[in-house]
Amino acid sequence: MGIVATVGQMQRAGRDTIAMCLGEPTQGAPSPVLARAAEVARDGTGLGYSPIFGIPELREAIASHYRDWYGLDIAPDRIAVTTGSSGAFQTTFLTCFDVGDRVALARPGYGAYKNILAALGCEVVELDCGADEGFQPTVELLAAAHAEAPLKGLMLASPANPTGTMIGPEALGKLTDWCRANGVQVISDEIYHGISYIGTRGECALAHDDDAIVISSFSKYWGMTGWRLGWAILPEELVAPAQNVTGNLSLCAPVPAQYAAVAGFSDESYAECEAAVASFAGAREHVLNARDDLGFGQMAPPDGAFYMYARIDDILDRAGLQTSGQWCAQVLDATGVALAPGDDFDSVDGPRSVRLSLAVGADRTAEAIDRILDFMG
Amino acid sequence: MGIVATVGQMQRAGRDTIAMCLGEPTQGAPSPVLARAAEVARDGTGLGYSPIFGIPELREAIASHYRDWYGLDIAPDRIAVTTGSSGAFQTTFLTCFDVGDRVALARPGYGAYKNILAALGCEVVELDCGADEGFQPTVELLAAAHAEAPLKGLMLASPANPTGTMIGPEALGKLTDWCRANGVQVISDEIYHGISYIGTRGECALAHDDDAIVISSFSKYWGMTGWRLGWAILPEELVAPAQNVTGNLSLCAPVPAQYAAVAGFSDESYAECEAAVASFAGAREHVLNARDDLGFGQMAPPDGAFYMYARIDDILDRAGLQTSGQWCAQVLDATGVALAPGDDFDSVDGPRSVRLSLAVGADRTAEAIDRILDFMG
Repeated sequence: MGIVATVGQMQRAGRDTIAMCLGEPTQGAPSPVLARAAEVARDGTGLGYSPIFGIPELREAIASHYRDWYGLDIAPDRIAVTTGSSGAFQTTFLTCFDVGDRVALARPGYGAYKNILAALGCEVVELDCGADEGFQPTVELLAAAHAEAPLKGLMLASPANPTGTMIGPEALGKLTDWCRANGVQVISDEIYHGISYIGTRGECALAHDDDAIVISSFSKYWGMTGWRLGWAILPEELVAPAQNVTGNLSLCAPVPAQYAAVAGFSDESYAECEAAVASFAGAREHVLNARDDLGFGQMAPPDGAFYMYARIDDILDRAGLQTSGQWCAQVLDATGVALAPGDDFDSVDGPRSVRLSLAVGADRTAEAIDRILDFMG
Repeated sequence: MGIVATVGQMQRAGRDTIAMCLGEPTQGAPSPVLARAAEVARDGTGLGYSPIFGIPELREAIASHYRDWYGLDIAPDRIAVTTGSSGAFQTTFLTCFDVGDRVALARPGYGAYKNILAALGCEVVELDCGADEGFQPTVELLAAAHAEAPLKGLMLASPANPTGTMIGPEALGKLTDWCRANGVQVISDEIYHGISYIGTRGECALAHDDDAIVISSFSKYWGMTGWRLGWAILPEELVAPAQNVTGNLSLCAPVPAQYAAVAGFSDESYAECEAAVASFAGAREHVLNARDDLGFGQMAPPDGAFYMYARIDDILDRAGLQTSGQWCAQVLDATGVALAPGDDFDSVDGPRSVRLSLAVGADRTAEAIDRILDFMG
């Protein structure tokens, strides 16, 4: 957050900044979504509370999306439209877990999982997932944590933030099998599905375990961050309890956005989303090509999402710095390029890592690399 | 929720229903808000994440509203724009309370307070506020609860749901004085301010205690339920911790709605809101005039909000029924008029009470009364 605030100050002062610190696609919502949002506002009716889990049209459109993308047949009444994936996490955690329950997740990982779980009184069990594991949980790591004290849940994220690594079908099947055998609820964060560079949109956990909870969002592939709209797919028996939680916690997701998002599943919308993914792919190529010049060390295989995560030990040693936070501050000050230090994602190894967000697109990424190389001399 | 679902089924079956069970104004957003929402969507830019506590324009507009309505000077950086008042409650509860903390609130009261607090692991202390206390907490009730075990917080709601009663300046001052003296955090739900029938918009807790937390919303006075937009005003020292909680929990409030809501503070918008309040006032008159014919017993003084809350012991006795839930089900089935049984608001006396929502407006309320009187013969 320090970096984001500094970027804002620099922008207000007229500096040309490149915010590669944010997981926010710059292309915005697809144009059919914007057109529908304008229509809905002009019409002005029907914008009261929706059903707790969303308008039927949107739940059906999401079900249809799962048929198209994954060949999965999901009943619309198992789909909860939520206030961003954030809302889906809250609903899911409060429905599945009690105070004191142990929930496992990968380190490095998205900081808010940990923080929300801790705020709700859960015990967060970090699995130390290194490069050898593709920064993803394994059955061995899970079994070891479960042996210490039983786990109640496992958070998965593929493609992952901050690493961009993905869990393939075989590895996912092993994880869900182990969880089912051991009574551990799988919660699969699939918000970066569709943003991938290895010829797959991402493996849906529901293809392996019908009792998994899948969480997704319009924020990333559809570029609709500020609209605060996401969804959860729940096992039949959790629908009623989750509805009860959500009805008390947030009533319903933003309704104008719900109507607009239905247009996100049109051919024109998908085409715009794919164009954005192509731009992220271009940005990824630029970074991979400049990787040695930049002096990046070990990097996670950036299979998906719009992140790259790299060790920068050599850079720090040469610059005589202790932490990636210090280096990112210097880079920002000198070049206007904002990178995210790894601290937020990994309290152990993060201070010697950086995350680059490709969400600024190919051209701005190329410009950012030039500036950083100039700065490094 | 049973009633709401039944109303939906009846509507889909073509029945003419009058949903006096919902706290949802039917007039919708003011037209300048809709016009601005359409513009924002047509433009399509700037709809990414906002700052955690909202766009500066909206925070400044809210601050200006407090100057106009209450003569209070609130720094915009103490104002957190939230995802409905629901989001404000979550942020506030998680910022102020730990698992096990005791938080007092009035019975009868809005069920979601209790449910959210309980879900977060707080101990809910219900204050038995009867007609003699105007269904509102008193220092005596608070002191008694505090003597059993120290309280950490007090939820106030004025105008209240379900009773519509209001806390006057003198009573509010006594409550906030006692809370300050005893280290109890006041959280004042003021979402129904502006909807009042006694010549005041409602007394703001900040006029009595600068450390109170005030929560409000665009859902009621502005009629924007489905937009999910509200706010909290925080003491300076809670701003940073609350921002940290919200940044993890929900990132920011819906951004298209934030831009649109700025137009809610125009003269034209206020005029439309006041017209809606006039319609609620007409509805209130209709119910008061028909009160004896309807056979309502003790009623809370309906000073504000768009609710009336009545004992129906005589009705139940004459009909040979045990609970208001049974009577409401009969009324709905026979007349298409949906009332809310008191159970959700008061587990003790609620089953012999009903809540009428006037949010359907004067004409529909008159029609509903005619139908109920016909049904009662």
